[in-house]
Amino acid sequence: MAEKKVLKEADVSFKEVKWGRTKELVGPATAGSAHVKVNITEYAPGRPHELHLHPGQEEVIFILSGEGYTESYGRRRELSPGSVVYIPADTEHATMTAGSEPMTALIVKGPPEERRDEGSGRDL
Amino acid sequence: MAEKKVLKEADVSFKEVKWGRTKELVGPATAGSAHVKVNITEYAPGRPHELHLHPGQEEVIFILSGEGYTESYGRRRELSPGSVVYIPADTEHATMTAGSEPMTALIVKGPPEERRDEGSGRDL
Repeated sequence: MAEKKVLKEADVSFKEVKWGRTKELVGPATAGSAHVKVNITEYAPGRPHELHLHPGQEEVIFILSGEGYTESYGRRRELSPGSVVYIPADTEHATMTAGSEPMTALIVKGPPEERRDEGSGRDL
Repeated sequence: MAEKKVLKEADVSFKEVKWGRTKELVGPATAGSAHVKVNITEYAPGRPHELHLHPGQEEVIFILSGEGYTESYGRRRELSPGSVVYIPADTEHATMTAGSEPMTALIVKGPPEERRDEGSGRDL
Protein backbone atom coordinates (compact mmCIF):
# COMPACT_ATOMS: atom_id res chain seq x y z
CA MET A 1 0.00 0.00 0.00
CA ALA A 2 1.24 3.52 -0.82
CA GLU A 3 2.51 5.60 2.10
CA LYS A 4 2.66 9.33 2.64
CA LYS A 5 5.91 10.78 1.33
CA VAL A 6 7.58 14.16 1.96
CA LEU A 7 10.54 15.28 -0.14
CA LYS A 8 12.32 18.34 -1.52
CA GLU A 9 12.25 18.69 -5.29
CA ALA A 10 15.91 19.82 -5.21
CA ASP A 11 16.90 16.40 -3.85
CA VAL A 12 15.53 14.60 -6.93
CA SER A 13 17.88 14.22 -9.91
CA PHE A 14 16.93 15.26 -13.42
CA LYS A 15 16.94 12.80 -16.33
CA GLU A 16 17.89 14.05 -19.77
CA VAL A 17 15.08 14.01 -22.34
CA LYS A 18 14.98 15.17 -25.95
CA TRP A 19 13.34 18.49 -24.98
CA GLY A 20 15.43 19.24 -21.88
CA ARG A 21 15.43 17.59 -18.46
CA THR A 22 12.71 16.05 -16.29
CA LYS A 23 12.40 14.51 -12.83
CA GLU A 24 9.55 12.55 -11.30
CA LEU A 25 8.46 13.88 -7.91
CA VAL A 26 5.49 11.55 -7.44
CA GLY A 27 4.48 8.55 -9.56
CA PRO A 28 3.76 4.85 -9.44
CA ALA A 29 7.44 3.87 -9.32
CA THR A 30 8.62 6.52 -6.84
CA ALA A 31 5.61 6.85 -4.53
CA GLY A 32 3.19 4.05 -5.39
CA SER A 33 0.58 6.47 -6.73
CA ALA A 34 -2.27 5.03 -8.77
CA HIS A 35 -4.04 8.14 -10.07
CA VAL A 36 -1.49 10.94 -10.56
CA LYS A 37 2.09 11.58 -11.63
CA VAL A 38 3.90 14.88 -10.94
CA ASN A 39 7.18 15.89 -12.58
CA ILE A 40 9.30 19.01 -12.89
CA THR A 41 10.43 19.56 -16.46
CA GLU A 42 12.93 22.07 -17.85
CA TYR A 43 12.34 22.93 -21.50
CA ALA A 44 15.78 23.67 -22.95
CA PRO A 45 16.56 26.42 -25.49
CA GLY A 46 16.65 25.15 -29.05
CA ARG A 47 15.02 21.81 -28.15
CA PRO A 48 11.23 22.27 -28.49
CA HIS A 49 9.04 19.43 -27.25
CA GLU A 50 7.41 18.68 -30.56
CA LEU A 51 3.71 18.03 -31.22
CA HIS A 52 2.52 14.86 -29.52
CA LEU A 53 -0.51 13.53 -27.64
CA HIS A 54 -1.13 11.23 -24.69
CA PRO A 55 -3.76 8.53 -25.28
CA GLY A 56 -6.29 8.43 -22.44
CA GLN A 57 -4.18 10.74 -20.24
CA GLU A 58 -4.78 14.35 -19.17
CA GLU A 59 -1.93 16.79 -18.55
CA VAL A 60 -1.66 20.06 -16.63
CA ILE A 61 1.41 22.29 -17.10
CA PHE A 62 2.06 24.96 -14.43
CA ILE A 63 4.91 27.34 -15.30
CA LEU A 64 7.31 27.91 -12.40
CA SER A 65 9.96 30.03 -14.15
CA GLY A 66 10.98 31.24 -17.59
CA GLU A 67 8.99 32.19 -20.66
CA GLY A 68 7.79 30.03 -23.53
CA TYR A 69 4.97 28.82 -25.72
CA THR A 70 2.33 26.14 -25.98
CA GLU A 71 1.04 25.12 -29.39
CA SER A 72 -1.91 23.03 -30.51
CA TYR A 73 -3.61 22.71 -33.88
CA GLY A 74 -1.78 25.72 -35.33
CA ARG A 75 -2.43 28.05 -32.41
CA ARG A 76 0.44 29.41 -30.27
CA ARG A 77 -0.03 30.91 -26.80
CA GLU A 78 2.62 32.61 -24.65
CA LEU A 79 3.54 31.17 -21.25
CA SER A 80 5.17 32.81 -18.22
CA PRO A 81 5.33 32.07 -14.48
CA GLY A 82 1.81 31.34 -13.21
CA SER A 83 0.54 30.20 -16.61
CA VAL A 84 -1.58 27.05 -16.51
CA VAL A 85 -2.20 24.75 -19.49
CA TYR A 86 -4.80 21.99 -19.36
CA ILE A 87 -4.42 19.42 -22.13
CA PRO A 88 -7.25 16.89 -22.42
CA ALA A 89 -6.43 13.28 -23.29
CA ASP A 90 -5.69 12.65 -26.97
CA THR A 91 -5.10 16.35 -27.71
CA GLU A 92 -2.01 17.41 -29.65
CA HIS A 93 0.33 19.89 -27.99
CA ALA A 94 3.89 21.17 -28.11
CA THR A 95 5.77 23.09 -25.41
CA MET A 96 8.96 25.12 -25.72
CA THR A 97 10.99 27.84 -24.08
CA ALA A 98 11.38 31.28 -25.65
CA GLY A 99 14.82 32.75 -26.00
CA SER A 100 18.02 31.55 -24.39
CA GLU A 101 16.89 30.40 -20.91
CA PRO A 102 15.09 27.19 -19.96
CA MET A 103 11.42 27.32 -18.98
CA THR A 104 10.60 25.22 -15.90
CA ALA A 105 7.17 23.71 -15.23
CA LEU A 106 5.37 21.40 -12.86
CA ILE A 107 3.78 18.67 -14.99
CA VAL A 108 0.73 16.81 -13.71
CA LYS A 109 -0.54 13.70 -15.47
CA GLY A 110 -3.61 11.63 -14.70
CA PRO A 111 -3.81 8.71 -14.95
CA PRO A 112 -0.04 8.24 -14.44
CA GLU A 113 0.33 6.06 -17.53
CA GLU A 114 -1.05 6.53 -21.03
CA ARG A 115 -3.91 4.21 -21.96
CA ARG A 116 -3.49 3.10 -25.52
CA ASP A 117 -6.24 0.50 -25.20
CA GLU A 118 -8.95 2.63 -23.64
CA GLY A 119 -8.50 6.08 -25.09
CA SER A 120 -11.14 8.36 -26.53
CA GLY A 121 -11.90 6.11 -29.47
CA ARG A 122 -9.75 8.22 -31.79
CA ASP A 123 -7.82 6.30 -34.37
CA LEU A 124 -4.18 6.65 -33.31
CA MET B 1 -15.59 16.99 -24.91
CA ALA B 2 -12.92 18.81 -22.89
CA GLU B 3 -10.80 21.34 -24.76
CA LYS B 4 -7.30 22.62 -24.18
CA LYS B 5 -7.27 25.62 -21.89
CA VAL B 6 -4.58 28.23 -21.16
CA LEU B 7 -4.93 30.67 -18.27
CA LYS B 8 -2.95 32.72 -15.76
CA GLU B 9 -3.43 31.68 -12.15
CA ALA B 10 -3.53 35.36 -11.14
CA ASP B 11 -6.74 35.77 -13.18
CA VAL B 12 -8.60 33.18 -11.08
CA SER B 13 -10.31 34.40 -7.90
CA PHE B 14 -9.77 32.81 -4.53
CA LYS B 15 -12.64 31.36 -2.49
CA GLU B 16 -12.50 31.57 1.27
CA VAL B 17 -12.19 28.24 3.09
CA LYS B 18 -11.83 27.43 6.78
CA TRP B 19 -8.02 27.07 6.48
CA GLY B 20 -7.37 30.06 4.21
CA ARG B 21 -8.19 30.60 0.53
CA THR B 22 -8.27 28.29 -2.50
CA LYS B 23 -8.88 28.59 -6.23
CA GLU B 24 -9.45 25.88 -8.80
CA LEU B 25 -7.16 26.17 -11.83
CA VAL B 26 -8.25 22.95 -13.53
CA GLY B 27 -11.12 20.65 -12.61
CA PRO B 28 -14.29 19.03 -13.92
CA ALA B 29 -16.35 22.22 -13.55
CA THR B 30 -13.77 24.70 -14.87
CA ALA B 31 -12.03 22.67 -17.58
CA GLY B 32 -13.99 19.46 -18.07
CA SER B 33 -11.19 17.31 -16.66
CA ALA B 34 -12.01 13.71 -15.75
CA HIS B 35 -8.83 12.53 -14.02
CA VAL B 36 -7.18 15.48 -12.24
CA LYS B 37 -7.96 18.64 -10.31
CA VAL B 38 -5.37 21.37 -9.66
CA ASN B 39 -5.85 24.20 -7.14
CA ILE B 40 -3.73 26.90 -5.55
CA THR B 41 -4.32 27.07 -1.80
CA GLU B 42 -3.11 29.64 0.72
CA TYR B 43 -2.89 28.30 4.26
CA ALA B 44 -3.61 31.25 6.54
CA PRO B 45 -1.87 31.97 9.85
CA GLY B 46 -3.81 30.71 12.86
CA ARG B 47 -6.14 28.60 10.72
CA PRO B 48 -4.59 25.11 10.39
CA HIS B 49 -6.22 22.70 7.97
CA GLU B 50 -7.07 20.05 10.53
CA LEU B 51 -6.61 16.28 10.20
CA HIS B 52 -8.79 14.84 7.47
CA LEU B 53 -8.64 12.25 4.70
CA HIS B 54 -9.95 11.89 1.15
CA PRO B 55 -11.71 8.59 0.40
CA GLY B 56 -10.39 7.04 -2.79
CA GLN B 57 -8.50 10.20 -3.78
CA GLU B 58 -4.74 10.90 -3.89
CA GLU B 59 -3.29 14.36 -3.19
CA VAL B 60 0.03 16.00 -4.01
CA ILE B 61 0.99 19.27 -2.30
CA PHE B 62 3.81 21.33 -3.91
CA ILE B 63 4.89 24.33 -1.83
CA LEU B 64 5.24 27.52 -3.88
CA SER B 65 5.97 30.03 -1.10
CA GLY B 66 6.04 30.32 2.67
CA GLU B 67 6.93 27.86 5.40
CA GLY B 68 4.73 25.38 7.23
CA TYR B 69 4.09 21.85 8.35
CA THR B 70 2.41 18.63 7.29
CA GLU B 71 1.19 16.21 9.94
CA SER B 72 -0.03 12.60 9.78
CA TYR B 73 -0.47 10.01 12.52
CA GLY B 74 1.40 12.08 15.10
CA ARG B 75 4.39 12.92 12.89
CA ARG B 76 5.14 16.52 11.86
CA ARG B 77 7.42 17.47 8.93
CA GLU B 78 8.56 20.95 7.94
CA LEU B 79 7.63 22.40 4.54
CA SER B 80 9.26 25.18 2.51
CA PRO B 81 9.27 26.19 -1.17
CA GLY B 82 10.03 23.12 -3.30
CA SER B 83 8.67 20.68 -0.70
CA VAL B 84 6.47 17.93 -2.12
CA VAL B 85 3.95 15.92 -0.10
CA TYR B 86 2.28 12.82 -1.55
CA ILE B 87 -0.80 11.73 0.40
CA PRO B 88 -2.28 8.37 -0.65
CA ALA B 89 -6.04 7.93 -0.67
CA ASP B 90 -7.63 7.41 2.75
CA THR B 91 -4.56 8.72 4.62
CA GLU B 92 -5.00 11.31 7.38
CA HIS B 93 -3.12 14.57 6.99
CA ALA B 94 -3.12 18.16 8.21
CA THR B 95 -1.40 21.17 6.60
CA MET B 96 -0.64 24.55 8.15
CA THR B 97 1.57 27.59 7.79
CA ALA B 98 4.27 28.42 10.31
CA GLY B 99 4.44 31.88 11.79
CA SER B 100 2.63 34.96 10.57
CA GLU B 101 2.66 34.60 6.76
CA PRO B 102 0.47 32.37 4.58
CA MET B 103 1.99 29.30 2.95
CA THR B 104 0.96 28.85 -0.69
CA ALA B 105 0.83 25.50 -2.46
CA LEU B 106 -0.23 23.90 -5.70
CA ILE B 107 -2.68 21.11 -4.81
CA VAL B 108 -3.14 18.17 -7.17
CA LYS B 109 -5.96 15.69 -6.66
CA GLY B 110 -6.72 12.53 -8.61
CA PRO B 111 -9.38 11.52 -9.23
CA PRO B 112 -10.94 15.01 -9.07
CA GLU B 113 -13.70 13.90 -6.71
CA GLU B 114 -13.56 11.77 -3.60
CA ARG B 115 -14.97 8.26 -3.96
CA ARG B 116 -16.86 7.35 -0.85
CA ASP B 117 -18.31 4.22 -2.44
CA GLU B 118 -15.13 2.69 -3.78
CA GLY B 119 -12.40 3.61 -1.34
CA SER B 120 -9.75 1.39 0.15
CA GLY B 121 -12.22 -0.65 2.17
CA ARG B 122 -11.46 1.28 5.36
CA ASP B 123 -14.39 1.89 7.60
CA LEU B 124 -15.06 5.61 7.38
